[in-house]
Amino acid sequence: MGVGKTKRMPRAVREQQMLDAAVRTFGQRGYMAASMDEIAELAGVSKPLVYLYLNSKEDLFTACIRREARALTEAVRAGVRPGLPADGQLWSGLRAFFTHTARNPDGWAVLHLQARTHGERFAAEVAAMREEIVAFVTQLIAAAAREAHRDPDLPEREVAGLAEALVGAAESLADWANATPGASAKQAAATLMNFAWAGLGDLMAGRPWSAPEGAEEEPVAQAG
Amino acid sequence: MGVGKTKRMPRAVREQQMLDAAVRTFGQRGYMAASMDEIAELAGVSKPLVYLYLNSKEDLFTACIRREARALTEAVRAGVRPGLPADGQLWSGLRAFFTHTARNPDGWAVLHLQARTHGERFAAEVAAMREEIVAFVTQLIAAAAREAHRDPDLPEREVAGLAEALVGAAESLADWANATPGASAKQAAATLMNFAWAGLGDLMAGRPWSAPEGAEEEPVAQAG
Repeated sequence: MGVGKTKRMPRAVREQQMLDAAVRTFGQRGYMAASMDEIAELAGVSKPLVYLYLNSKEDLFTACIRREARALTEAVRAGVRPGLPADGQLWSGLRAFFTHTARNPDGWAVLHLQARTHGERFAAEVAAMREEIVAFVTQLIAAAAREAHRDPDLPEREVAGLAEALVGAAESLADWANATPGASAKQAAATLMNFAWAGLGDLMAGRPWSAPEGAEEEPVAQAG
Repeated sequence: MGVGKTKRMPRAVREQQMLDAAVRTFGQRGYMAASMDEIAELAGVSKPLVYLYLNSKEDLFTACIRREARALTEAVRAGVRPGLPADGQLWSGLRAFFTHTARNPDGWAVLHLQARTHGERFAAEVAAMREEIVAFVTQLIAAAAREAHRDPDLPEREVAGLAEALVGAAESLADWANATPGASAKQAAATLMNFAWAGLGDLMAGRPWSAPEGAEEEPVAQAG
């Protein structure tokens, strides 16, 4: 980000740099403690320019939430491979989710910690993203149930509840993985896959879920 | 709550009435929208008395969070029956959790929605409760793993991750159950038990978890 070049940059590029700096600052220091001075400095622009482009701290934070929410939902949607059997689809989606949250810890902190802690306006932005993800997971589980039984015996409400449970578990594990030194995205995905697919019962009996033969990922090992 | 009787009530009793009114108001209207006038009126006391006892809106809200957090953790601890096998313990704990959140929807909204949405001070109060519950669930899972294998092969970190997943799933389902007309505490507990114990894999194959014979609860049916 050479300061000498900023004048020639198109607005869209410079705005993305401001958002990069803002996500990092909000994610690491928290919404309240983050200052516009700090964000402008990190972005290599003047503070008036940040206000000119993004209007206010509130609007800048909202823009961060929207960008990070879109990036996360797109990563999950792109990660799920529709040709696979149900467990393979779930595994590919979980890998994509935890890889994204591990690579973008500040973005995840903005979405799951900061946005929910600083007022209803921001919380509502995240709630909209969450509803979209729950709907997507509900579809996946319903499709898996149809695949398993031609006459599906998992009622709609049960499927909705399972999707809520899965999304809540994933959110909680993403926080945990990012806060636990040495915990990897793959390990978090494997833990949730074991939990959600094999279930604690099979897990206790020493029967973890394992990837079907021919899947390109290696089998899920108990993380060490 | 006869107004005529308030003068003879001991402070502790009157304070509980204020907290009852505050939890209800904060839970139903949200922290920002809730007014001290409204809370005092609902409690049947004067507003100055609320300030005298609880000092400020912030302190009153903090007192609500602490009381509701204690009630929830005590309900879960009291619900888990230590003599049962691992799945029976989990089932009894989940039943206690969802029964409590269903009976106290305003308390749950204060803990899981309001307290996390209105600043770091309140969020930290809830985080402390959550850590306590995660530690408790971690112990349960570790004990179950020891019971299943004399030489435990679930490493400590995997157990911690499973506990995070279970707690996150339970939080998410409690929100969902309280927001979904007709969803019962028992159904939410059964959904999570199926998810967590039998796993989606067994569930898809038509093998839900069922309570062991002789347990006093009836088997878990797929909710209709």
